[in-house]
Amino acid sequence: MKIDLNSDLGEGFGPWTMGDDAAMLDVVTSANIACGGHAGDPETMFATLRQAAERGVVIGAHPGYADREEFGRRVIPMPPARIGRMVAAQVGALQGIAALAGARVRYVKPHGALGNLAADDRTVADAIVAAVSALPGNLAVLAISGTDLELAARAAGAEVFSEIFADRAYLPNGRLVPRSQPGAVLHDVEEVADRLIRFLETGLMPAIQGAPIPLAAQSVCVHGDTAGAVSMAQAIRARLGAAGIAVAPFLQVEGRA
Amino acid sequence: MKIDLNSDLGEGFGPWTMGDDAAMLDVVTSANIACGGHAGDPETMFATLRQAAERGVVIGAHPGYADREEFGRRVIPMPPARIGRMVAAQVGALQGIAALAGARVRYVKPHGALGNLAADDRTVADAIVAAVSALPGNLAVLAISGTDLELAARAAGAEVFSEIFADRAYLPNGRLVPRSQPGAVLHDVEEVADRLIRFLETGLMPAIQGAPIPLAAQSVCVHGDTAGAVSMAQAIRARLGAAGIAVAPFLQVEGRA
Amino acid sequence: MKIDLNSDLGEGFGPWTMGDDAAMLDVVTSANIACGGHAGDPETMFATLRQAAERGVVIGAHPGYADREEFGRRVIPMPPARIGRMVAAQVGALQGIAALAGARVRYVKPHGALGNLAADDRTVADAIVAAVSALPGNLAVLAISGTDLELAARAAGAEVFSEIFADRAYLPNGRLVPRSQPGAVLHDVEEVADRLIRFLETGLMPAIQGAPIPLAAQSVCVHGDTAGAVSMAQAIRARLGAAGIAVAPFLQVEGRA
Amino acid sequence: MKIDLNSDLGEGFGPWTMGDDAAMLDVVTSANIACGGHAGDPETMFATLRQAAERGVVIGAHPGYADREEFGRRVIPMPPARIGRMVAAQVGALQGIAALAGARVRYVKPHGALGNLAADDRTVADAIVAAVSALPGNLAVLAISGTDLELAARAAGAEVFSEIFADRAYLPNGRLVPRSQPGAVLHDVEEVADRLIRFLETGLMPAIQGAPIPLAAQSVCVHGDTAGAVSMAQAIRARLGAAGIAVAPFLQVEGRA
Repeated sequence: MKIDLNSDLGEGFGPWTMGDDAAMLDVVTSANIACGGHAGDPETMFATLRQAAERGVVIGAHPGYADREEFGRRVIPMPPARIGRMVAAQVGALQGIAALAGARVRYVKPHGALGNLAADDRTVADAIVAAVSALPGNLAVLAISGTDLELAARAAGAEVFSEIFADRAYLPNGRLVPRSQPGAVLHDVEEVADRLIRFLETGLMPAIQGAPIPLAAQSVCVHGDTAGAVSMAQAIRARLGAAGIAVAPFLQVEGRA
Repeated sequence: MKIDLNSDLGEGFGPWTMGDDAAMLDVVTSANIACGGHAGDPETMFATLRQAAERGVVIGAHPGYADREEFGRRVIPMPPARIGRMVAAQVGALQGIAALAGARVRYVKPHGALGNLAADDRTVADAIVAAVSALPGNLAVLAISGTDLELAARAAGAEVFSEIFADRAYLPNGRLVPRSQPGAVLHDVEEVADRLIRFLETGLMPAIQGAPIPLAAQSVCVHGDTAGAVSMAQAIRARLGAAGIAVAPFLQVEGRA
Repeated sequence: MKIDLNSDLGEGFGPWTMGDDAAMLDVVTSANIACGGHAGDPETMFATLRQAAERGVVIGAHPGYADREEFGRRVIPMPPARIGRMVAAQVGALQGIAALAGARVRYVKPHGALGNLAADDRTVADAIVAAVSALPGNLAVLAISGTDLELAARAAGAEVFSEIFADRAYLPNGRLVPRSQPGAVLHDVEEVADRLIRFLETGLMPAIQGAPIPLAAQSVCVHGDTAGAVSMAQAIRARLGAAGIAVAPFLQVEGRA
Repeated sequence: MKIDLNSDLGEGFGPWTMGDDAAMLDVVTSANIACGGHAGDPETMFATLRQAAERGVVIGAHPGYADREEFGRRVIPMPPARIGRMVAAQVGALQGIAALAGARVRYVKPHGALGNLAADDRTVADAIVAAVSALPGNLAVLAISGTDLELAARAAGAEVFSEIFADRAYLPNGRLVPRSQPGAVLHDVEEVADRLIRFLETGLMPAIQGAPIPLAAQSVCVHGDTAGAVSMAQAIRARLGAAGIAVAPFLQVEGRA
């Protein structure tokens, strides 16, 4: 049994940092790197791409609404086709920097409010998939398991992988409990690890109500933007190892067997 | 005998426009399209790329300092390697949008203060050439004739083309007379056309002092950011035709013989 | 009988211009000047403030969503208190520049999507009024006639003036016909002038359906962002003069009797 | 004997933070608050203003080059008059937010590269002083001791206070040793405190070479952007107390005796 761990990285901007990217890059096998939209700039992108490439971490683009002040966490009203162009510009920028960094962008995972919208709005999901498919580099899509983005990618014949969240409570419909509700985020490391391992063994995710939900996932998203989150990610990785579950990227590492 | 005409296009931003891109795209054979740095945004890039592709105009990227308030016309202090990363991000963004627009970016011409710096600072020129060479898509460099950028591209084995300016006076060293000096810009259409045709026939460009300068050029830069500039460009094209000089892109148009 | 003419001005950004401010400043008696949010920057603000002050045009601040790419024409989701802080920062910036330009900001009129939201959302209207009232300088509010912003300002004891639009069709409820609907914008100068003069004489505005609507107004908004709009504004002013209606600011010009 | 402690605060942006403002506001008596140029946004300004006002910390504006990617640490080429307008817009924005926060801006201290340029370029210093003097609110200037900014403010009849740096080495000419040189920043808390107390007792600052330099100062700048810096600031404050030196703002706290 094996699973990928992914995290959102390179989310600083100019003089400002977000989380401990170096520590997280020692934990995860796939890195979703901000592209200058909600976070990131050429210097941050370059440094994060280099660090990821040096560690053999698979690289994804993490485009989001170009809304730094709110970190891409609110929906900026725009037609789907325009979302597609925004995504193409951001992923293209990261690909440009990756070419200089000797790295390669392998997949795309939309960030924050854009990811949430693409989960439930099929026209937005289709626009993102169309942009990803048009871009060079044979990019895969990393979608939240069971969402419109996953369906849209599959329908378009794009390569698609799905993720679950280890430290988030789930609604009976398979969506995340919104952060604004109590109990939305799980903080107990052992509980989170237990839950994840059970999920990997059974394919069933506990919901806050009713029966566990069947979900498919090739990756687990771990957060890295607080000190506690880094410890959580490290503990999850350790517990997975102890349970005999291999942690490996969902895409082959470039230049490795 | 043949020559390319190029112009800086797609230099609007959001609700604001700059010049008459549609009119200029009917005149030029190569379009230097802004990449979201000194000007341009995903929507502007997309629209300009489409218009250029529809007319069979060859497309170049026109990266500049990310300084919209001054339109990329002042040097923003930064080390050469960082300039390279800025260029890579901008050209990558345009390539991403081009993929959606069914267009292809074929060359890179740096804008404004960045272009001027790259003309005279070899380390900057080298950094830009390194970025252009690292990017996918076999990009050529379009450099001002006789500059460090041209030398750097040649030294790196990159494909390089050079341009002259039809409506600008030249110093004896082959550089442009700065705009701040009287006589720097020529406004008489017939004089400009005469001068250009003589240059194309002889390879010699008149200088404000001393002997004409030998310059090599595959392209002539025409400006499009004022109404008068559009007329100038149209007149130049007409006069070239009348003189039996073909106007054709320096790079082969995609999908044509 | 007298009426004020106001227009949105200083809506360029960096190298880009919007409309012909100088021509409009010769027509209007009050100028709503962009504050660096949806448009404007320190140089544009300064130049526009100077031009307005030189002509004795009364100066208002024209804050909008800090969304240049869409010119403040879409609602950016944010809580009302945060809208208040955004407005305070923008008006304060214009006041700072006005101090240098020897001008004074006398009123505030919210722009675009912010103005439309404040027309129909009382909590947003209250937040804007609270910000305007907290700012120094005894600022008045210029609201669209009959809107929540007008009510909020009145309820708060703020000085408030109201405007109508000469070239826009009205719904029976006194709101503007959305631009997306046919007939929303009137283009015939004589019709627009006739309609305005009748309104000024009767206080009744024709609606697209049903009886004319009673509206109170101390100002008429005229647009200046196209060549046609300038001619329209000039014609309106001429027709008002011919009809014996004085065009004068709703606020006393500084330093004049 | 008494001295003011000042620190640069409110230097986050959107989701990103810089240093521990709350901890520093318990140490300092004057707060230089970023104005949305090199750092800061309406929300950050509001929160920092409120925190400072609640603690009775005197508030200053801390304008800088509008260059977030480099945190205002490089000179962006622009004429002095334009610098003045940039400063006026930024300070005005902070004043606008302060009005909403029930706080008052009392002085202006330029940030980073702008502060360094104003120290040695009298025309820039004059432009900043002209802007500060034109703004409402009777703003004082806080200048690095012995610089052109101090001279310019004095020559213009502006209220001016001067600061020294506790943890920075000085050149024989009274300027700071550039950060790029070894020994530029002092890290030993006891050494820094000893040096500061000796300076306060004698008015003489040790230079890296030659005799100590006579400097006048009403304030000491302490940094807060790293955890170590907070401890340093706290230790300095404690040592000053132990030495019987009162720590008090150079300007009277509003509404206090």
